[in-house]
Amino acid sequence: MAVFLTRRRVELADTDLEGMVHFARCLVYMETAEHELLAAAGVSIGTDAAGRRWSWPRVKVECEYLAPLAFGDEVEIAVSVAERGRSSVTYAHRLSRGGEPVARGRVTAVCCRRRDDGGLRPEPIPAELAAVLDGYL
Amino acid sequence: MAVFLTRRRVELADTDLEGMVHFARCLVYMETAEHELLAAAGVSIGTDAAGRRWSWPRVKVECEYLAPLAFGDEVEIAVSVAERGRSSVTYAHRLSRGGEPVARGRVTAVCCRRRDDGGLRPEPIPAELAAVLDGYL
Amino acid sequence: MAVFLTRRRVELADTDLEGMVHFARCLVYMETAEHELLAAAGVSIGTDAAGRRWSWPRVKVECEYLAPLAFGDEVEIAVSVAERGRSSVTYAHRLSRGGEPVARGRVTAVCCRRRDDGGLRPEPIPAELAAVLDGYL
Amino acid sequence: MAVFLTRRRVELADTDLEGMVHFARCLVYMETAEHELLAAAGVSIGTDAAGRRWSWPRVKVECEYLAPLAFGDEVEIAVSVAERGRSSVTYAHRLSRGGEPVARGRVTAVCCRRRDDGGLRPEPIPAELAAVLDGYL
Repeated sequence: MAVFLTRRRVELADTDLEGMVHFARCLVYMETAEHELLAAAGVSIGTDAAGRRWSWPRVKVECEYLAPLAFGDEVEIAVSVAERGRSSVTYAHRLSRGGEPVARGRVTAVCCRRRDDGGLRPEPIPAELAAVLDGYL
Repeated sequence: MAVFLTRRRVELADTDLEGMVHFARCLVYMETAEHELLAAAGVSIGTDAAGRRWSWPRVKVECEYLAPLAFGDEVEIAVSVAERGRSSVTYAHRLSRGGEPVARGRVTAVCCRRRDDGGLRPEPIPAELAAVLDGYL
Repeated sequence: MAVFLTRRRVELADTDLEGMVHFARCLVYMETAEHELLAAAGVSIGTDAAGRRWSWPRVKVECEYLAPLAFGDEVEIAVSVAERGRSSVTYAHRLSRGGEPVARGRVTAVCCRRRDDGGLRPEPIPAELAAVLDGYL
Repeated sequence: MAVFLTRRRVELADTDLEGMVHFARCLVYMETAEHELLAAAGVSIGTDAAGRRWSWPRVKVECEYLAPLAFGDEVEIAVSVAERGRSSVTYAHRLSRGGEPVARGRVTAVCCRRRDDGGLRPEPIPAELAAVLDGYL
């Protein structure tokens, strides 16, 4: 089992008047970490080599907050794959700061192809991408 | 059982390149609806009449996305209280558009007093506020 | 000369650790007010009646901040049109709270048609919309 | 004259339905670059070594947008100091992608001390920080 690791620093615009990171921004941190995992594997969300447009709508997110994050903190985000279905993937995220856990979350996204009319149709995850994801199971 | 209802319209900055509301913004919609519920009951997050500072950190959030929201859509947000403990409250949110459910979520927040050193200490929910919340159970 | 007026309340996620609205959110307030002005005139950004896709990229923004806005404040946003060219429009915005000015800004947007390849091409502002804008000059 | 350089990658949550970075996010990119400049010089916004609280409210921002930024683009942000007064500093920012200019902006911030009642009072920029800023003039 592999875990994908990335880091980022808390920015002022991520905080709110309580002086800590606004809880919804943690979900953005998690999403960006997923995209970095995919990019590191040479997979781009968006358009594939054949010009088809893909989309990964989230159908479920959850997050538990264990400790507050402050401006300037360096956050480590560890992403793995908790479950991989035919069309869906559930990522598990662990956010920490200097080894201390600060949040853990799960996000389920569905692999969709964008139709010409703009609508989305679920599709099996392409084999190459499924292999990448399974490497993080 | 009462349900608190509020409405808002999707703004451009709430959307992302997929053309729909970014999933993390739905959680902001939910949070703002809670604050409106409290404000409607005459309760402000922040400082109380005695000058004490309160804070309501979230310890858990979850959201299921049932249908995408587009720019300009009017969203109705219905908030009720799923559970009310001594120091914590779990809100249940239902987002809909023209009667169609688009998301449902739950958020658990803990009532904390801000100490002089800036730290947070969980406190029993003040009786007056507990009564307001129980009205939405 | 007409001025378009709208109101909104400062949300928690609009603030930062300084306890006031983050400066970049004021620009979102301004943008949303423009969209409300257009919607009130029956004009939608995005797709027109003939199915053509329009886009209004900003080429210039500026904002002066006169007083801080706090969580829960009701902000009044007054929009007028400072200049209207063949393809561009410069909006002037005044933000106030209870009659007190809090910010004033200007935003220049260019009317563009979205081409099939996704690119943008400046176009003359459609006559009907130009008439709406000129009503706010 | 020195220029402070930093880089970041466009995230999904930075984009809007037009498929490009929302204009207000560019101002967040600029602000974060300022904080990185200060952090690189060992200066933290917020509290100083003597425990005094500082704040740098923006009094003016402006930005010209020269080309759109897309999801995944790597943005280079170059910050210099256009003007340095007794209590204020005007930063000049240049955003580029692979050498192509995409935006240029200016931001004026005022050095303030936070009083015990929460209010802000403009103060001369501390000498050590003034020297850092002057290095970027």
